[in-house]
Amino acid sequence: MSNIKITLPDGSVREYPQGSSSMDIALSISEGLARNVLAAKVNGQVWDATRPIDTDANLQLLTWNDTDGKATFWHSSAHLLAEAIEALYPGTKFGIGPAIETGFYYDIDLGGKPFSQEDFKKVEDKMLELARQKSEYKRTSVSKADAIEYFTEKADEYKLELIDGLEDGQITFYSQGNFTDLCRGPHIPNTGFIKAIKIMNVAGAYWRGDEKRPMLTRVYAVTFPKQKELDDYLHVLEEAKRRDHRKLGKELELFTFSEKVGAGLPLWLPKGALLRERLESFLRRAQVRAGYSPVVTPHIGSKQLYVTSGHWEKYGKDSFQPIHTPEEGEEFMLKPMNCPHHCEIYKARPRSYRELPLRLAEFGTVYRYEQSGELHGLTRVRGFTQDDAHIFCRNDQVKDEFKRVIDLVQYVFRSLGFENYSAQISLRDPAKPEKYFGTDEDWNRAESAIIEASAEKGLNTVTELGEAAFYGPKLDFMVRDALGRKWQLGTIQVDYQLPQRFDLEYMGSDGTKHRPVMIHRAPFGSLERFIAILIENTAGNFPLWLSPDQIAVLPISEKYMDYANDIFLQLQEADVRGYVDHRDEKIGRKIRDAEVHKLPYMLIVGDKEQAEGTISVRRKGHPDMGSMKLEDFVTYFKTEIQSGIATFGA
Amino acid sequence: MSNIKITLPDGSVREYPQGSSSMDIALSISEGLARNVLAAKVNGQVWDATRPIDTDANLQLLTWNDTDGKATFWHSSAHLLAEAIEALYPGTKFGIGPAIETGFYYDIDLGGKPFSQEDFKKVEDKMLELARQKSEYKRTSVSKADAIEYFTEKADEYKLELIDGLEDGQITFYSQGNFTDLCRGPHIPNTGFIKAIKIMNVAGAYWRGDEKRPMLTRVYAVTFPKQKELDDYLHVLEEAKRRDHRKLGKELELFTFSEKVGAGLPLWLPKGALLRERLESFLRRAQVRAGYSPVVTPHIGSKQLYVTSGHWEKYGKDSFQPIHTPEEGEEFMLKPMNCPHHCEIYKARPRSYRELPLRLAEFGTVYRYEQSGELHGLTRVRGFTQDDAHIFCRNDQVKDEFKRVIDLVQYVFRSLGFENYSAQISLRDPAKPEKYFGTDEDWNRAESAIIEASAEKGLNTVTELGEAAFYGPKLDFMVRDALGRKWQLGTIQVDYQLPQRFDLEYMGSDGTKHRPVMIHRAPFGSLERFIAILIENTAGNFPLWLSPDQIAVLPISEKYMDYANDIFLQLQEADVRGYVDHRDEKIGRKIRDAEVHKLPYMLIVGDKEQAEGTISVRRKGHPDMGSMKLEDFVTYFKTEIQSGIATFGA
Repeated sequence: MSNIKITLPDGSVREYPQGSSSMDIALSISEGLARNVLAAKVNGQVWDATRPIDTDANLQLLTWNDTDGKATFWHSSAHLLAEAIEALYPGTKFGIGPAIETGFYYDIDLGGKPFSQEDFKKVEDKMLELARQKSEYKRTSVSKADAIEYFTEKADEYKLELIDGLEDGQITFYSQGNFTDLCRGPHIPNTGFIKAIKIMNVAGAYWRGDEKRPMLTRVYAVTFPKQKELDDYLHVLEEAKRRDHRKLGKELELFTFSEKVGAGLPLWLPKGALLRERLESFLRRAQVRAGYSPVVTPHIGSKQLYVTSGHWEKYGKDSFQPIHTPEEGEEFMLKPMNCPHHCEIYKARPRSYRELPLRLAEFGTVYRYEQSGELHGLTRVRGFTQDDAHIFCRNDQVKDEFKRVIDLVQYVFRSLGFENYSAQISLRDPAKPEKYFGTDEDWNRAESAIIEASAEKGLNTVTELGEAAFYGPKLDFMVRDALGRKWQLGTIQVDYQLPQRFDLEYMGSDGTKHRPVMIHRAPFGSLERFIAILIENTAGNFPLWLSPDQIAVLPISEKYMDYANDIFLQLQEADVRGYVDHRDEKIGRKIRDAEVHKLPYMLIVGDKEQAEGTISVRRKGHPDMGSMKLEDFVTYFKTEIQSGIATFGA
Repeated sequence: MSNIKITLPDGSVREYPQGSSSMDIALSISEGLARNVLAAKVNGQVWDATRPIDTDANLQLLTWNDTDGKATFWHSSAHLLAEAIEALYPGTKFGIGPAIETGFYYDIDLGGKPFSQEDFKKVEDKMLELARQKSEYKRTSVSKADAIEYFTEKADEYKLELIDGLEDGQITFYSQGNFTDLCRGPHIPNTGFIKAIKIMNVAGAYWRGDEKRPMLTRVYAVTFPKQKELDDYLHVLEEAKRRDHRKLGKELELFTFSEKVGAGLPLWLPKGALLRERLESFLRRAQVRAGYSPVVTPHIGSKQLYVTSGHWEKYGKDSFQPIHTPEEGEEFMLKPMNCPHHCEIYKARPRSYRELPLRLAEFGTVYRYEQSGELHGLTRVRGFTQDDAHIFCRNDQVKDEFKRVIDLVQYVFRSLGFENYSAQISLRDPAKPEKYFGTDEDWNRAESAIIEASAEKGLNTVTELGEAAFYGPKLDFMVRDALGRKWQLGTIQVDYQLPQRFDLEYMGSDGTKHRPVMIHRAPFGSLERFIAILIENTAGNFPLWLSPDQIAVLPISEKYMDYANDIFLQLQEADVRGYVDHRDEKIGRKIRDAEVHKLPYMLIVGDKEQAEGTISVRRKGHPDMGSMKLEDFVTYFKTEIQSGIATFGA
């Protein structure tokens, strides 16, 4: 028996006897590693870890931390689920049972027997019992005839229909314990890897998605290699539900929707409007320091503008349709982007190299049509406000501008509590140079500029080839929220196309005309989406400087109303936002309501406070701060604000 | 001969012999008054002051200060112009010669002879010469036959055509000096009243506005009873031209228009955007103090929203047409007003009387279609931002709310240098109660509320019956600018209709549901229009707190650039706006350019300043302030800002 050459992801090459499995190879590296191997990628294809390898191969061992490893784990768990159900409900017929993004499901036909919440525990326990048997997942090739015979005996018309669509010679079965399924694989080595199980819910699902076919019962479940991971997962789910921005948006009275105004068009209520205002003014201030110039442009433009920009071609048919007017020949469009307007501002007069980089910033509200079925709270809307800016610069300024924008983005993330972020550098597909607009030289320079700028700023990046837009390379930021969920936020994009389409120029120091490069950037992305993420990340406990209401003055009774009003007026003078709770309610109720509304500070005033000219201070999430003079509180408050938000570029 | 009873505007009644003229009556009151009487309103009709009055009558003497007096003066001046032209260019034929808002014109047919700028002086001199003759304007009734004979002799086919359209027995001629005209009158007593004359320009005008008829020469002119008034008028014209917001807007780089974006859709350049931002944040701050809550709503709404509000009926056909979408049955409109959206916010949840007044404020950009021929700079546009708010209140709160809004409007005007303003109270036409929406009781209460609130706030008001909107009474503010021109600005309007259309309710203290009243209000009116007026009022010399650039640091040469940059950074830290003039230019040029750009402060730095750590300060329009430490300048600067803008409600 000859040896085969196995190349590992780090490029090292090892020799093994022909017919070694990935698991054998893992064991040769370390036993600990082998314990975690769920499957393996052999020459790019996912295989059972136990399957013999007969030729030289590139090998990547897959664990729980790999997407493909996880998918294999969940697919094997679907078989375990089926085994448990067959044991508990004999005669059950099975449709399909794939892994999905958040676990797996199996479509089953219980012959009319009910299956609900009450059955979950029984199935989970059975699965755990079977898992503890550490049954191996065994792969066998079967002929089409044998396959048909097997499932005819089980009277499973679903599997028979599936087999009908397969080619003889290509059919494999997988068995574990007492269960055998028609399956292409791959699977984990044995059921013992599955340590924690949760059936999530059931739903009806038409066989093959066809509403004329029978309705099966789809059982959703999730499994983990450790109980703690399941506990964490369920906790995150619970938390995510609690933090859902649609739920908190309503409870905290931040925004609302109205059928009459239209789906996907948020109406910002006073507290939400204040939050937006604070975010805008925070970024506006940072942008002034960073050398941006504000501009304001209308929400419509002539159709011709978008024909020039190319947006008509891109959004024309699928978006809001053109707006006609009583005057003939005029047609306008809701703006899907701010860039064409900014190009026209650039063109308002001749530009010189001395003016570059010219950084035009606008909180620009744009409108893009989304199918009503795709709308979702503030994250998928039909109108949203971008914290947009366009930097017009020379080719040799791209790197420096990227560094400056990265600074700004990092400042924004830091100020808003997103400490955990990474970035993706999207470059050309080197195999398809014809796909891209602009010269090779420009692209090379811009791509290096982005790579170097990211490295110099110490960004944690991944680089994806072929992910660049056709008009230029880009850098996208991903943040992880308090629940570990990933969100795409800010973006920085180079654009070689629009300057050409709008024929933008500047007079160079050499006395001849040149074309500027354009950089699109938005640290928040959109205010709507950003606020949704901020709500879910903070569970509505916004940083003090952002909080719509920062304090509530709570008089213990009617008697202290004047004193409470007086305190509040002085706080308003000091630019502290909030209100006096004027209701004729018990102090306990007032405190509870302030807690529900996530008030950062409660200032309680009663007999003692009025007599001493003080207030009793409670900071949400902190021990009682006792009573203090108003001036001292204001000083303390301002210090907290200051520490929460640094000055950009200072 | 019996006496007649003459009732004067103050209600007093005097007796005069039948056949007395208004001039006789004026003389009986005072000789000084008589010298100023140009015509008179007899029972509501404007008459010659010299025309005998034969019956009892209401009499109002008209002077230069009355619109009708001025119109009579200018109409008589048109006759004087014709007399002069006939004398200088015999054979000239005459069309019509009416008074207009800014003087008068006469359409003449010179038989092909040229008439241009060079002829103006000659005509003015001739008019003055004729005016000095104090020729009386004499009225005679003529038969149609005689009238035709007179103008046939003069071969004036234009007058003949006019006579053709008149009824026999209704025709009058007016003569002064050697000139006789077909004319209904009335006229001033004699040409001697006309003391100052200016021919403004000439233009072509088709006879009767019909482009198939002959083109006549329209001579525009203006006259005054005093030379000083003409001088002032010409000065204002000159100034208005110099201050034209379209011209200054371009020079100061505040805004621009782009054909590709569309006519009437301003693009705000950085300095203009900053100005807007300052105005918005100024009013936002005042509004917070005044108890307003900010909201943000989209720029579109479903067509149904506007059907409900009634705007579809009002604006539907003549404005931007509905926006269709790929999804069937959906139709949106650009919002022409913010009120429907605010009504939907009111309806977001049940409201209690305790929440009222609820004051929702938004800088809401609305879009209304204007014919392209009617667009004018920032004063007539197709998209504009209202400093809008809607107050939802109880009927008994209307007066107090009006008083609060008047306070706010006065604060805004005072802070922006409009010291000279008045207000118009627009009430129902008592004769047509059926025209109005809402109960008599509500209207009576709201009208008294407005009248009382205006009186208590000491407003200078005029009251107009029949000028109310059909949905409620209102109060409009008019300011006079530095050139004495009147502009309509802020408005406060009661609305009984929308609360009904949107079925708005609140739970009263009596436990039953009530309908709130709505008050629309906008102190600026629109940001666009307000900024246009502000530019023309200040000639671009904005108050320091509003100035887009407040300071320019001017290094005397390259050598002091670092010092200049250092100074600028410290100023930026202190929130002072401006720039360093980095150009390699002579200091004289830098100063001149800063003056052209209306920089409030120039900070000059050179050898001495750098050595001493100081700056040399020049305040526009003030003597040189010499050199000072930067800290002292910042203190001085902040004090000026503070004194320029008070804190509202503090």
